[in-house]
Amino acid sequence: MQVIYLDNAATTWPKPPRVKEMMAEVIDQYAANPGRGGHALAMKASKTLFRTRMQVSRLFGIKNPNDLFFYLNATQALNQAIKGFLKAGDHVITSSIEHNSVRRPLEYLRREKQVEISYVQPREDQLFYAEDFAKAIRPDTKLIVTSHASNLTGLILPIAEIGAVARANGIAFLVDVSQTAGILPINVETMGIDMLAFPGHKGLYGPQGTGGLYVRAEIELDPLIHGGTGSQSEAVDQPTTRPDRFESGTVNTVGLAGLLAGVEFVMEKGVENIQRHDWGLAKKTLQLLQEIPGVEVYGPDLSVERVGVVACNVSGADASEVSFILDQQYGIATRAGYHCTPLGHETAGTINQGAVRVSFGVFNTEQDVEQFVKAMREIAAAFHS
Amino acid sequence: MQVIYLDNAATTWPKPPRVKEMMAEVIDQYAANPGRGGHALAMKASKTLFRTRMQVSRLFGIKNPNDLFFYLNATQALNQAIKGFLKAGDHVITSSIEHNSVRRPLEYLRREKQVEISYVQPREDQLFYAEDFAKAIRPDTKLIVTSHASNLTGLILPIAEIGAVARANGIAFLVDVSQTAGILPINVETMGIDMLAFPGHKGLYGPQGTGGLYVRAEIELDPLIHGGTGSQSEAVDQPTTRPDRFESGTVNTVGLAGLLAGVEFVMEKGVENIQRHDWGLAKKTLQLLQEIPGVEVYGPDLSVERVGVVACNVSGADASEVSFILDQQYGIATRAGYHCTPLGHETAGTINQGAVRVSFGVFNTEQDVEQFVKAMREIAAAFHS
Repeated sequence: MQVIYLDNAATTWPKPPRVKEMMAEVIDQYAANPGRGGHALAMKASKTLFRTRMQVSRLFGIKNPNDLFFYLNATQALNQAIKGFLKAGDHVITSSIEHNSVRRPLEYLRREKQVEISYVQPREDQLFYAEDFAKAIRPDTKLIVTSHASNLTGLILPIAEIGAVARANGIAFLVDVSQTAGILPINVETMGIDMLAFPGHKGLYGPQGTGGLYVRAEIELDPLIHGGTGSQSEAVDQPTTRPDRFESGTVNTVGLAGLLAGVEFVMEKGVENIQRHDWGLAKKTLQLLQEIPGVEVYGPDLSVERVGVVACNVSGADASEVSFILDQQYGIATRAGYHCTPLGHETAGTINQGAVRVSFGVFNTEQDVEQFVKAMREIAAAFHS
Repeated sequence: MQVIYLDNAATTWPKPPRVKEMMAEVIDQYAANPGRGGHALAMKASKTLFRTRMQVSRLFGIKNPNDLFFYLNATQALNQAIKGFLKAGDHVITSSIEHNSVRRPLEYLRREKQVEISYVQPREDQLFYAEDFAKAIRPDTKLIVTSHASNLTGLILPIAEIGAVARANGIAFLVDVSQTAGILPINVETMGIDMLAFPGHKGLYGPQGTGGLYVRAEIELDPLIHGGTGSQSEAVDQPTTRPDRFESGTVNTVGLAGLLAGVEFVMEKGVENIQRHDWGLAKKTLQLLQEIPGVEVYGPDLSVERVGVVACNVSGADASEVSFILDQQYGIATRAGYHCTPLGHETAGTINQGAVRVSFGVFNTEQDVEQFVKAMREIAAAFHS
């Protein structure tokens, strides 16, 4: 059975063929440590790594590629940003739809360092407003951290407006673009973003094991990881040079070469075209699902643009069971459960049931939507007959 | 020009062909998130990840594969172990040849948390003795952390004996096997090892972007990274289940599949055979270099077994210059400098000059040794004519 893959919000799949080709080339020709040896193989690795840093920087409007650090995943990037920036007793503002990769580090700091957290809620129309972030500001507020889009409903937050609020109040602004990197236009300058955490294996079409963090030059962070950097080896402390200070140990050269191929693929396609495609499929899915008796969908009014993620349920049926049937009987890969965002579920009102999440990527088609909707129609009928 | 690669202590190269093949298979067939979705593609990824956990566990004599956590590199593993274990004011014992991936986290804790550090020195024969670690123990000693072998001279530390000392005194024992995983026999049970940090891209012949940490079930660590684990999503704190508690965010499925292929390659070759081969080449190199006027080699007497790493210099010549000539004129890839171990250089007496490091892997041959020694003879002659 041909699999219809609708779990792109977890990891995009398939990858563009050039991702695999690029990784194979690196393994064959120069799997050496960038910055660690002066020999030709290591220089080649350095060049590829630098090209990745350049291209990712271009995509996000980052002026100096050395302000971009690579990590295992967006979670590590978010931990570096949050734990490296907040000090004991600081106040931080975040949203009520955050992934556990933001919520858990914050709650850890609340327990261990008396950091205080304000969770901003959406309004009745289910949308977030920059004004509400402004209202939550206190004299001791040091950071605003939010997702660019919900990993549950695809809801987009008004990042540029929140960025303007942060800037006007001299507060640092950290954005988790796990669901939007490569999908929505992102520019750290025009959006007032001070720190940006991204995964490599979602909308950037790179492999797992890649992700990173941009940190504006003026922002000082404590490194989360200390170790060898290939520079200033004789110093007991981390070097102050970027990116070395924040990239201890051997980097994932092979994976980052794959990320380079993914990012170049995204640039050629055009971020706007990708969003139009993904959201087009998601919107059609939502429209068709709404017409099915016994199927519920979540999120704001369809006139509001989101990213290509759909949360839905068959009323009265466990989300996991529906997802299991989709997989086993229809060969459709979706995801059920809490998607690491209990906050998002509380906000969406699905905390007891979880939700079936369907998420689109560039390789999905209208036919995939039709197959999925047809399957949901049959499952809903079976549950409600 | 055919490259002679002698920088295997940084990253082994080439990799066995199956590493690339395995990674390509994962990208093509199931690059989904293990543990995050119930669908068939995610299940396939989970199975491969578990097989990697099993095989690495077998290699190190780890009873429960869930006590093994995967990270970006050995540095991240060491940071998790050291910072997750030591509390303010604790005393820790380490050796004077540690890599910056051990030294810098320790020195960070000294500055920030008043952790006290004792550095054990080698004796006049340049060897380390477990007895000297025993002598450094104080009532408040909580941890002994050492490398299994020096990344500069290949010197091996008496891990089993130090482990016995640690165990007898109720002190935890952390070993950095960056230079020995896949090269020397390692058994966490018989060697009394409580925590073991390893890279995937050196002696295990996997790709960069992989590494991990074993932590005995009885040892409690604070997680360094908080985030989504795909389990207990609704909880504000990290789940207590292993490995989830220590593996937040998407794991490097593709890279870890490559590591699986690398580990299976090592198991088929046999660790003892690999060590015999690597050390055989290093010993021959040392013997031949000793005969060249104007060439210095470092480390203990040749009757003492080491791993396949050689540190040398042309007297009066800058190590970087020699390494550069080797690369440019002879196509021989070595590494010059401080190798992230200023401690090791102080110990070896090469702190002013650095050293040229030559390190062997399974694909090196006697011919590589001859080519390298011939080149060194010519370079030394040129510098001393």
